[in-house]
Amino acid sequence: MSTRVGVLGATGAVGQRLIQLLAPHPDFEIAALTASGASAGRTYRDAAKWRVDSPIPEGVADATVVETDPEAVPDDVGLLFSSLPSGVGAAVEPEFVEAGYVVSSNSSNGRMDDDVPLTIPEINADHLGLIEVQRDERGWDGALIKNPNCSTITMVPTLAALDRFGLDRVHVSTLQAVSGAGYSGVTSMEIIDNVIPHIGGEADKMETESRKLLGSFDGAEVSLHEADVSASCNRVPTLDGHLENVWADLDEDPAPEAVAEAFESFPGIDLHSSPEQLIEVFEEPDRPQPRLDRNLGGGMAVAAGGIETTNRGVQFNCLAHNTMRGAAGASILNGELLLEEGYF
Amino acid sequence: MSTRVGVLGATGAVGQRLIQLLAPHPDFEIAALTASGASAGRTYRDAAKWRVDSPIPEGVADATVVETDPEAVPDDVGLLFSSLPSGVGAAVEPEFVEAGYVVSSNSSNGRMDDDVPLTIPEINADHLGLIEVQRDERGWDGALIKNPNCSTITMVPTLAALDRFGLDRVHVSTLQAVSGAGYSGVTSMEIIDNVIPHIGGEADKMETESRKLLGSFDGAEVSLHEADVSASCNRVPTLDGHLENVWADLDEDPAPEAVAEAFESFPGIDLHSSPEQLIEVFEEPDRPQPRLDRNLGGGMAVAAGGIETTNRGVQFNCLAHNTMRGAAGASILNGELLLEEGYF
Amino acid sequence: MSTRVGVLGATGAVGQRLIQLLAPHPDFEIAALTASGASAGRTYRDAAKWRVDSPIPEGVADATVVETDPEAVPDDVGLLFSSLPSGVGAAVEPEFVEAGYVVSSNSSNGRMDDDVPLTIPEINADHLGLIEVQRDERGWDGALIKNPNCSTITMVPTLAALDRFGLDRVHVSTLQAVSGAGYSGVTSMEIIDNVIPHIGGEADKMETESRKLLGSFDGAEVSLHEADVSASCNRVPTLDGHLENVWADLDEDPAPEAVAEAFESFPGIDLHSSPEQLIEVFEEPDRPQPRLDRNLGGGMAVAAGGIETTNRGVQFNCLAHNTMRGAAGASILNGELLLEEGYF
Amino acid sequence: MSTRVGVLGATGAVGQRLIQLLAPHPDFEIAALTASGASAGRTYRDAAKWRVDSPIPEGVADATVVETDPEAVPDDVGLLFSSLPSGVGAAVEPEFVEAGYVVSSNSSNGRMDDDVPLTIPEINADHLGLIEVQRDERGWDGALIKNPNCSTITMVPTLAALDRFGLDRVHVSTLQAVSGAGYSGVTSMEIIDNVIPHIGGEADKMETESRKLLGSFDGAEVSLHEADVSASCNRVPTLDGHLENVWADLDEDPAPEAVAEAFESFPGIDLHSSPEQLIEVFEEPDRPQPRLDRNLGGGMAVAAGGIETTNRGVQFNCLAHNTMRGAAGASILNGELLLEEGYF
Repeated sequence: MSTRVGVLGATGAVGQRLIQLLAPHPDFEIAALTASGASAGRTYRDAAKWRVDSPIPEGVADATVVETDPEAVPDDVGLLFSSLPSGVGAAVEPEFVEAGYVVSSNSSNGRMDDDVPLTIPEINADHLGLIEVQRDERGWDGALIKNPNCSTITMVPTLAALDRFGLDRVHVSTLQAVSGAGYSGVTSMEIIDNVIPHIGGEADKMETESRKLLGSFDGAEVSLHEADVSASCNRVPTLDGHLENVWADLDEDPAPEAVAEAFESFPGIDLHSSPEQLIEVFEEPDRPQPRLDRNLGGGMAVAAGGIETTNRGVQFNCLAHNTMRGAAGASILNGELLLEEGYF
Repeated sequence: MSTRVGVLGATGAVGQRLIQLLAPHPDFEIAALTASGASAGRTYRDAAKWRVDSPIPEGVADATVVETDPEAVPDDVGLLFSSLPSGVGAAVEPEFVEAGYVVSSNSSNGRMDDDVPLTIPEINADHLGLIEVQRDERGWDGALIKNPNCSTITMVPTLAALDRFGLDRVHVSTLQAVSGAGYSGVTSMEIIDNVIPHIGGEADKMETESRKLLGSFDGAEVSLHEADVSASCNRVPTLDGHLENVWADLDEDPAPEAVAEAFESFPGIDLHSSPEQLIEVFEEPDRPQPRLDRNLGGGMAVAAGGIETTNRGVQFNCLAHNTMRGAAGASILNGELLLEEGYF
Repeated sequence: MSTRVGVLGATGAVGQRLIQLLAPHPDFEIAALTASGASAGRTYRDAAKWRVDSPIPEGVADATVVETDPEAVPDDVGLLFSSLPSGVGAAVEPEFVEAGYVVSSNSSNGRMDDDVPLTIPEINADHLGLIEVQRDERGWDGALIKNPNCSTITMVPTLAALDRFGLDRVHVSTLQAVSGAGYSGVTSMEIIDNVIPHIGGEADKMETESRKLLGSFDGAEVSLHEADVSASCNRVPTLDGHLENVWADLDEDPAPEAVAEAFESFPGIDLHSSPEQLIEVFEEPDRPQPRLDRNLGGGMAVAAGGIETTNRGVQFNCLAHNTMRGAAGASILNGELLLEEGYF
Repeated sequence: MSTRVGVLGATGAVGQRLIQLLAPHPDFEIAALTASGASAGRTYRDAAKWRVDSPIPEGVADATVVETDPEAVPDDVGLLFSSLPSGVGAAVEPEFVEAGYVVSSNSSNGRMDDDVPLTIPEINADHLGLIEVQRDERGWDGALIKNPNCSTITMVPTLAALDRFGLDRVHVSTLQAVSGAGYSGVTSMEIIDNVIPHIGGEADKMETESRKLLGSFDGAEVSLHEADVSASCNRVPTLDGHLENVWADLDEDPAPEAVAEAFESFPGIDLHSSPEQLIEVFEEPDRPQPRLDRNLGGGMAVAAGGIETTNRGVQFNCLAHNTMRGAAGASILNGELLLEEGYF
């Protein structure tokens, strides 16, 4: 039997991807679509400027959008996916959780809160235990769970795989696609024949979120991983797919083959949206490339390549689809984990 | 009185830039244009598919291209600028120098040879002293001098300015324009909606050439700078201008303001093509950007921005025009230095 | 002595171009900058996100922006350049003219009004006579003059040159740069790896405005040219420069050489911003191209090429810089004409 | 039982698409791959720089490439798909046909030959009758059949649908993707921030091939359609998908709705690769767009939109995937027709 789910912020770019992924999902059934007041009461077709490269799913097009308000969402909806702007999310997500809903959120607000699990199911599913802490502390019936930022998700699986060699220090330079900024986030005048060497707040997210994801949970709190992470974030004229140049200083001194083996053998998780092979390794030095490789594993795999040793560790490139593995797919995967673990 | 100069490899992308810059030059007069056998005997207009954004200079268009052979170049030509493919350069440049010509070369062959000066005039003009060593060892009358790779030139002035704080270790990620690969080096199918995380040999050039440029010359040989440099090179869909994300570990712990001051106060050199301000610093965190800032100082300045401290030093971005400061302009600047120092 | 001028809508993309062109202008002196209420009272540097590829002119950066209101503009300002959004222009421009100002406007409102001159000085300077009609009918002291849409301006000089052969029918397909939609008009998600075969209202403007520009003025009214014009307008991923494929059915049957001669011999006008050669003709069939040729004549020339005869006339391509010749430069040229003719 | 087929020119861009489409094809089985002498004897994986967005099909990767010579192809191969450069095709295709092979060719040579069927199965399947003429005249056992140029295929289905209203005269302006020039046909330096208003020979192909496709076959020869077709061809920075602005002068005066109905009701054909709906019509004026709509009908549909009446007929836009419907898919569809009609 399908779980009835809702999408908070259903008309935006990530909201559209959520709907595209949820419509054919075997375990979830779309039962509520929310947006801001201006869209409430309109059909989804009218309210959303649909831009995903497949038609609006049947049933969704003519559904009526409601306001982003717990009162407006049916009680039998068990799980909400949130892709609200972070300011709105900060204000509204707690209201939904207080009203008893479980919220799997892609919004950046609250990710580093002590009692909010920030999870990538293949990496730190055990952090879900924070939900008990959260309920105790806040007196909530529901639960709030976050997935990290798209640029963080792209890198963290590779770092988790490297941690067996003693992860000490990380430098990462990102080449991020324009879709990461939302449909209207980057104008064409800004980015044609250009790159922008700054994305507000992004480096800080990569530096803090990755340490939380790689941290250990003792049943009460998450200790941040001790690695020093320093990021530099760039916007490039690519539609989808974040590519990242990573240097990892390691305690040990593995050969490139050992690093490749660590990547390829890193275990996945048995959930619907998780790919068979979490990290795919290319031998060609000029791969992965965004346009050629962003859809690996249905857009849910991480690709790695260009592995070389340095004086103190290893350098390599990694790539993931920023609106699939990095946003909508990440929230859904967290929802699948919550379902599997019986949180609703 | 103008010095009569020649261009070896005059029909290629860098050759065209050389001609564009030499035509109005106050001290140089174009007196010879060479290319491969297929072009020899044709007018320059016919032989070159001119693609620079200003018309072919008068006098050049109807000049006859000769073969890249010392016999074909007039004896009264004092200085040759070489933008030959490196394989051709390795074979032919020594012939010209043996025949007595002074060659200022942009080709990558021989840059790391012990007795070949690799210079950026504002950084290590004193390395020109290697010419004496070169003449002694090879028995040459002329001289061979090299400028570094475009991606190296972009970064090295900033590293030279930081060395007062004790430069220890460098990580650099490049976002390089397609013009760096020559007119036909990157196809549109490769780069539209894409980035390529690998440029053959480029990372190695950055790692070795920068240490030679920053090294000290004791009158007999150049000792490489001890800094550990690790590079990751990417091609992006930008026409001109290489942007680079740099992390520099330093012995000292300067504030961002001190770094900015070190950049801005780094001295230039009194040569025609050298900009008044060698390193221009932006306060806006999203600058410099290739399209907006590549033409600073007539394409000969280096732009820096995004300066932030890290746990062990500083991170920042830098940018230079890759075919001006990074190639044709670099060779001409070396030619101006040779003229100033009386080498021909 | 310079005429003191103002810019209505000074912070937008065309407003910035106007300032860039007016600052060094020999006959005009910037004395007023207006914008919407949110910007009023701030310095221009603060109010405008300056994106033109040269620094904000001295004097302008620290000038205070005032509201777009006749009361806020000094009385000694003789001429106003307007780049207001058309809705605002329709509401506000008449207020300024009623208050006695002469307004040279790039805004699309009112271009087809019977008593408003729509002019390209090299084409129909005599239409300025409509100002008398306008003053009579509206009781205005000032004057309102319009320049046409950027895509219209690109084509009309070539049509005017062809009219000697009896212009009968025109088909035109445009490939328009993103800057024509304003700085934020086209998002990167819309246009990377894409083209958009529709620009709202643009085809209609080309079809009506060109017939008014080519029409004859009898001292009382402008009779539209009888040619049938049909346009199809496309947005392409180009920053600046509109390229247009034109077919002109003609009464006569000129050879391509005669058409080229008609283009090249079409007279310019002796005004500061008008290029020496109004229409430049390329013999290479693949020229003009936007990136290579948009800056001809300081961005004020029209380039043509690919001239071939058809069964009923001729086909060719034309190109102009859409924010120079097609917008800001067009308004300034009209201002120069008004000055020359003594309208203020 | 599958027919054993071969691909002539298997390593090029269209050759790769052919293999991608043939590998899963229910009726065809890849049994021979040919290329130039330099590739012969190598595995396909080695010989081809595979760039299609799906992996090299199993079985193909390790197959040995043979020379493009009838001797080198097994006798039990019944059908050959040719994507040879036109010069090679002109020399070699007749040799294969003389040796008894049936060749479905995408190469441009010979398309306008009187005894060579140039077919789009949904449009003029009856022209296959020319094969008898061909065999009679040339004494061949095999057969040579051509599909038209990619830009022609995009437009002709819409013209065929309009012919019920009396097609009289056509103007067409194309915005063609870079993949149409082959993998290395357009360099990034040529096309970033640019468009090129000329594609050698393309306009002529559109003007002649479309009249042959729309012509009538009386059992002995094809009479060209009388419509006057004039084309202007542009290359734009799009990866795949040719968009075309079309004006059709008609004898009748249909309303836009009647034109849409004519498009949508135009019959397809019952062959494996033919889409259910040959021409899909968009009501949104800004559709079809290449990136959003090129994959309609598995890349084999034609999309139309922007239908408006003109003074003498109708104007509209159409779009098709240039390497699917416009090249590899077109050849395969012709192969399916030949199979259906029992030609091998």
